[in-house]
Amino acid sequence: MANKKVVLRSYADGLPKVSDFEFVEACRQAVPEGSTAVVVKNLYLSCDPYLRNLMSKKEEPFDVPEFNIGEVISGFGVSRIVESGHPDFKEGDFVWGITGWEEYSIINKPDGLIKIKNTDLPLSYYTGILGMPGLTAYVGFHEICSPNKGDYVFVSAASGAVGQLVGQFAKLLGCYVVGSCGSDEKVELLRSKFGFDDAFNYKKERDLRAALKRRFPEGIDIYFENVGGALLDAVLLNMRRHGRIAVCGMVSQYNLERHEGVHNLALVNIKRLHMKGFVVFDHYQLYPQFLESTIPSIKEGKIAYVEDVVEGLENAPAALVGLFEGRNVGKQVVVVARD
Amino acid sequence: MANKKVVLRSYADGLPKVSDFEFVEACRQAVPEGSTAVVVKNLYLSCDPYLRNLMSKKEEPFDVPEFNIGEVISGFGVSRIVESGHPDFKEGDFVWGITGWEEYSIINKPDGLIKIKNTDLPLSYYTGILGMPGLTAYVGFHEICSPNKGDYVFVSAASGAVGQLVGQFAKLLGCYVVGSCGSDEKVELLRSKFGFDDAFNYKKERDLRAALKRRFPEGIDIYFENVGGALLDAVLLNMRRHGRIAVCGMVSQYNLERHEGVHNLALVNIKRLHMKGFVVFDHYQLYPQFLESTIPSIKEGKIAYVEDVVEGLENAPAALVGLFEGRNVGKQVVVVARD
Repeated sequence: MANKKVVLRSYADGLPKVSDFEFVEACRQAVPEGSTAVVVKNLYLSCDPYLRNLMSKKEEPFDVPEFNIGEVISGFGVSRIVESGHPDFKEGDFVWGITGWEEYSIINKPDGLIKIKNTDLPLSYYTGILGMPGLTAYVGFHEICSPNKGDYVFVSAASGAVGQLVGQFAKLLGCYVVGSCGSDEKVELLRSKFGFDDAFNYKKERDLRAALKRRFPEGIDIYFENVGGALLDAVLLNMRRHGRIAVCGMVSQYNLERHEGVHNLALVNIKRLHMKGFVVFDHYQLYPQFLESTIPSIKEGKIAYVEDVVEGLENAPAALVGLFEGRNVGKQVVVVARD
Repeated sequence: MANKKVVLRSYADGLPKVSDFEFVEACRQAVPEGSTAVVVKNLYLSCDPYLRNLMSKKEEPFDVPEFNIGEVISGFGVSRIVESGHPDFKEGDFVWGITGWEEYSIINKPDGLIKIKNTDLPLSYYTGILGMPGLTAYVGFHEICSPNKGDYVFVSAASGAVGQLVGQFAKLLGCYVVGSCGSDEKVELLRSKFGFDDAFNYKKERDLRAALKRRFPEGIDIYFENVGGALLDAVLLNMRRHGRIAVCGMVSQYNLERHEGVHNLALVNIKRLHMKGFVVFDHYQLYPQFLESTIPSIKEGKIAYVEDVVEGLENAPAALVGLFEGRNVGKQVVVVARD
């Protein structure tokens, strides 16, 4: 049986391009006799900024190995088990975890897959609010930011998969929350749909420091860092004493040969700031606790969630490229199949 | 009675210069009737890098107010009470705290002064190892760095008042310690006198990243940051996962109109680094505990201490300027009088 897949054609140089990928058709594999592998049918694929980092060879090893030319792209997705050699998974189970950008994948070590128990919410949510980005937002805000009721919170890339949730978690705790994003449409979304106290389009602000100062006359207690570069410099100037900066990512920098310089780090000393990098893979033990607190909030309508859904595996490369052009509104998902 | 003093003549622009100061002669003041002020005779003055920050007007308020033109320079020093209106201090008491760069100072709010109880160690030590820099090293290492036995520790400005102690605290805990400094004489001091495992002269290293890599093939767990700029960038490339960076100061940057850019901050995310700024003024409650653990170590010869002693108030400006040229070897102290 045929199996369409997206493979890496060339390493990315600067912004990723659709032509860095190509489509190939291969044969669908079966579980070898005696193996504990599973074969899954891929339903929803997740476009996440970290994938760009795997598209070129880096000096610093990340948690996930980089892609090689000709290899299938792999990333987070929601899948259905169609064949199982593993006692914990049976045909028909829905799972989320690392899978391939292809119709069917054989997963040799299925222990990393998480079985989806709550199927009364859309399955695509497990690429976002109920999956890796959701846990990232939860851990990053509640564990890394040491938040208190009344804190002044700033979130960059605020309409993205992680940012929209961080802002809502902060609102639920009673914080004052402002988000930045890259279009007026997203500003509107942050204000109306996600309940941010304020939001701005960073592309329209000539003076980012002043833009923040206007919105945080008392300064910022918590900065949830998704972008890096010039915005981080402006934030440092606006941080309050003993403020916390959770470094979740620096998406504005991933396509640069040399990252922008950040000039205001001496303020980390004077203002006694804590800047803490984190990666969600270290915090998977919190996933059950996260689901338990988040699922009721979604069902009760206390947390809103916006997806940007693209149909068809053939559109996956363009969807990933679009992330870096700010084209997506909300979490970028690719539908390969619906069941 | 006459009182010689050092006042600010002009705000510093770039490196501070001796001509930014001038000497004036005024009259020695007395404690006004009914006041709780004290008059002290100044014995030892401390030259600390933070003083440079008070010599020009800054946007960001620091803990200590900036100097005004014509005002006496003030900073840490060791003094003897010669007249007291305060019940806690009597004539003859030795104290350390903020005083003036002058022969005699009137201190209107003496509650900030700390009475010196252990006078069997040199009194000048209370400008350094037993004073503010000593507590800075103690708090910065033990409270901010979360150190463990066996950690790989790097200290910049390592022969300075704070650095020499951080390295020795780390050695006492069983860490592997490397220091950087700005002369071969200081390298020798770090290796022989302070017992660092290794040390290097950053001015002789063309490739700071490689210099660190050679000395930390396994990477750095703890970086005690005193300098900032290019060295910080090189350190980030050499940090291990979950490493800690205590930001005590960034002395290489204080004289620059615009601070150097730091380009490798995305590694804070990938390597899960914690970068924590701190200021010793928040931690004075630890001073008794610090003395209790440090004084026996000094007396038993387990901690070495090197001062760079300059004689005479008239040489104080040059001694402060010398800090930024790396001229001092060890803690820079100015002797105004010996008793």
